[in-house]
Amino acid sequence: MKNVEHIGIAVRDFSEANGLYFKLLGVEPYKTEYVESEGVNTSFFKVGGTKIELLEGTTPESAISKFVEKRGEGIHHIAFEVEDIYAEMQRLKGEGFILLNEQPKKGADNKLVCFVHPKSANGVLVELTQEIR
Amino acid sequence: MKNVEHIGIAVRDFSEANGLYFKLLGVEPYKTEYVESEGVNTSFFKVGGTKIELLEGTTPESAISKFVEKRGEGIHHIAFEVEDIYAEMQRLKGEGFILLNEQPKKGADNKLVCFVHPKSANGVLVELTQEIR
Repeated sequence: MKNVEHIGIAVRDFSEANGLYFKLLGVEPYKTEYVESEGVNTSFFKVGGTKIELLEGTTPESAISKFVEKRGEGIHHIAFEVEDIYAEMQRLKGEGFILLNEQPKKGADNKLVCFVHPKSANGVLVELTQEIR
Repeated sequence: MKNVEHIGIAVRDFSEANGLYFKLLGVEPYKTEYVESEGVNTSFFKVGGTKIELLEGTTPESAISKFVEKRGEGIHHIAFEVEDIYAEMQRLKGEGFILLNEQPKKGADNKLVCFVHPKSANGVLVELTQEIR
């Protein structure tokens, strides 16, 4: 794990939350992106060497909409940058972590991603992320 | 906000969680600290330019014990490093954020800290932290 690439925050109202995080962090999002496959709007704020990602579900079936429905708005996941996502997935499986996908999938921001089940990481949804080179 | 200083994770069993995060992150905690005033055991793992902090409540009255009781284990807060905590508290108050303490208090790891109410930040418990110089 090289770095905390970003922290994902699930929100109800994207435009209101972007305004609020602008006030909180003192910077505008440097990028917004709609990820159709996941049914989410995303925006990214740079804070030092890491990022805050806001996520709004765009369909009721989206994992983000379900999270907000069940638990309310709040921190959704921590994403760790890895050098080689395939090797890291193998390593974590060997250590007994439960992966939510067998193969990396395409996430926002030109990344390959894989999630680790919160049950195997003290209630934390962990994302592994590797830049697509 | 200069940086994400750390991400705080509330856990039930400190020693088990430290073992698990060692496996996940591939590094040992560089420090553990008991903060009597808050009733918590804390440990810190370095990951790139930020840290993961594990928190275990040591009394039933501890905010961490109550959090785990109510919501289960999981991500508890995001701490942002600031240059001048007094100035930042003033600025955020002016922007309409609700601060949980009127004056900075002494936290773990030789820091002054102040918390922002999750209700005013899309369900996220935000910590401001400044190194005591």
